[in-house]
Amino acid sequence: MANYKITLLKGDGIGPEIVNQAVKVLDKAAEKFDFTVEYDEALLGGCAIDATGVPLPEETVAKCKASDSVILGAVGGPKWDNQPGNNRPEAGLLGIRGALGLFANLRPSVIFGPLKSASPIKDEIIGDNMDIMIVRELTGGIYFGERGRDDDSAWDTEKYSVAEVERIARVAFDMAMKRNKKLTSVDKANVLESSRLWRQTVINVSKDYPEVELNHMYVDNCAMQLVRNPKQFDVIVTSNIFGDILSDEASMIAGSIGMLASASLSGGKLGLYEPIHGSAPDIAGKGIANPLATILSVAMMLRYSLAQPEAAEAIEAAVAKVLETDRTPDIYEEGLNKVSCEEMGDLVCAQL
Amino acid sequence: MANYKITLLKGDGIGPEIVNQAVKVLDKAAEKFDFTVEYDEALLGGCAIDATGVPLPEETVAKCKASDSVILGAVGGPKWDNQPGNNRPEAGLLGIRGALGLFANLRPSVIFGPLKSASPIKDEIIGDNMDIMIVRELTGGIYFGERGRDDDSAWDTEKYSVAEVERIARVAFDMAMKRNKKLTSVDKANVLESSRLWRQTVINVSKDYPEVELNHMYVDNCAMQLVRNPKQFDVIVTSNIFGDILSDEASMIAGSIGMLASASLSGGKLGLYEPIHGSAPDIAGKGIANPLATILSVAMMLRYSLAQPEAAEAIEAAVAKVLETDRTPDIYEEGLNKVSCEEMGDLVCAQL
Ligand SMILES: CC(C)[C@H](C(=O)O)[C@@H](O)C(=O)O
Ligand SMILES: CC(C)[C@H](C(=O)O)[C@@H](O)C(=O)O
Repeated sequence: MANYKITLLKGDGIGPEIVNQAVKVLDKAAEKFDFTVEYDEALLGGCAIDATGVPLPEETVAKCKASDSVILGAVGGPKWDNQPGNNRPEAGLLGIRGALGLFANLRPSVIFGPLKSASPIKDEIIGDNMDIMIVRELTGGIYFGERGRDDDSAWDTEKYSVAEVERIARVAFDMAMKRNKKLTSVDKANVLESSRLWRQTVINVSKDYPEVELNHMYVDNCAMQLVRNPKQFDVIVTSNIFGDILSDEASMIAGSIGMLASASLSGGKLGLYEPIHGSAPDIAGKGIANPLATILSVAMMLRYSLAQPEAAEAIEAAVAKVLETDRTPDIYEEGLNKVSCEEMGDLVCAQL
Repeated sequence: MANYKITLLKGDGIGPEIVNQAVKVLDKAAEKFDFTVEYDEALLGGCAIDATGVPLPEETVAKCKASDSVILGAVGGPKWDNQPGNNRPEAGLLGIRGALGLFANLRPSVIFGPLKSASPIKDEIIGDNMDIMIVRELTGGIYFGERGRDDDSAWDTEKYSVAEVERIARVAFDMAMKRNKKLTSVDKANVLESSRLWRQTVINVSKDYPEVELNHMYVDNCAMQLVRNPKQFDVIVTSNIFGDILSDEASMIAGSIGMLASASLSGGKLGLYEPIHGSAPDIAGKGIANPLATILSVAMMLRYSLAQPEAAEAIEAAVAKVLETDRTPDIYEEGLNKVSCEEMGDLVCAQL
């Protein structure tokens, strides 16, 4: 019987509550699909600053590296806003991405049938469905390039190597092959040298994927097209900073931020799975947070890191079913049952 | 009687047709408001490449510098897509911005009453109106920083000096004072050193504008908030690359791209005025292009460069009036008159 070692980085704000529900669902899935899970906890973000003085203690990196996969709640909050830049909760997040080599960030923007009306976009544009997968490069570009100050100026470097672009392009093409064989590469090749290298490298990699229809789009145009007609996109691949902006835009277009999961993958099996929403300090501890994005992140983990696709599908189906009748306050609609974070976890387990 | 020297950069694609209509309207306004206009033409973009080999001939810079203001149509098209990066039509656009010191790009995203339904965003979010002014830094940042290749990598530099941020911040605060005294500065200060300098400098400048309510937003969040609730924004100030992305997103949210004008200002009176849409090579020469964004750019020119605010308002009012009954094909609605580019110009003149 397979046994998986999972590190939990509960983090700050609502992080602990939502991760607890995700663990409950994962345990239930383990029971049903005949595997076992062993958990360890480690500190990241604000809670790590409070306990150790730094947002990413070495012990956390070691524990994550020794595990099969990592589940993250959320980090940050006003309490740590006055920390210097390199010692903020976010620095811990960037640090763990770098330390674990999590170069590929998969961010699906999907609309869950019963939540269709949550999109700010008109019904005639969104139609019955929207399903975009953004593949964002996560350990390169301006996030990790050299930066500094001289005299009265400050600078950051957007830098990409051919190898960095190649490996993220392969992840995107592989994803496109599993979906609708359509890939949009987003860059700013009319201005940036790094984008020209990006585009040329993506074109070179495309020769290994003759079945995938590849097109290129400038980032400013993509920001427009996501609003104008999101359904034209299937898989999008882009750099770290453009991916940061476009994936947030796309997730808002899908509506319900509280529902969206993400995966950050390394070359091997090890991945980090987290909801795309933040730590929501204003509702932390009140028991009203929506745990579904974290539960759906567990489904992504089962699919991408633990090779348990059936368990992943079962969780996704259970979530879809529960949504028909029960909702946390953030996605509540008249006529349905309003439930707490914990009740939502229980309902998904029961449905499983 | 005031006399203004205006350089016309008609450019490529639909550029010449729309500029011709804008000139007609400007002449009519001159007649009505008692000033005279002298025109000169110069080459920029693809037409300049065809005639001289480069997208920005020196003569063009000299003519623009010797004039009171510049009207630009649009540049680019598939014909020049295979030019090397530094000799493309877009390079001419970046070149003229740099050469004329046009550091402040004003991009209003407004909804014209009768075109309200053109927004992809739901009516209950957009309401009766949307009116955002994006102030984009235009001659700094990653567009103008050093770039290059080494070995297998390519890099670009996002760099800002305190002086560069100060002057664009002042333009934005002055704009906020003339509007609703609300300014949002957008950056990525949780990651970028240049953004931390940006934020600190904006805060310092804000001390001279105690009446303006200033807030800061991360660029990824801003990309979301523009979709979720665009009405929370009044004036936005941001860097060159973030402004490129966010202003395109905002203009799509407003709907009708064919209607939106822009101004690029230097420290002095000289400005460059252009529609935000492109050269639309597919409809060039067919007489069906929408000249209104260019006509509204002329209104901006009258306001910001030529100190003729009454003429500006008169043009804007004439456009609003004509829209009630007459439309070019791109904004056509059942029951109204469908008119050509030239007819639209004539109608605005007649209304004036
Ligand atoms: C918190 C921040 C540093 C981070 C990023 O910019 O990558 C976040 O926005 C994200 O997308 O995960
Ligand atoms: C054509 C391109 C170089 C330009 C830019 O990125 O500035 C355009 O997108 C714009 O916004 O005027």
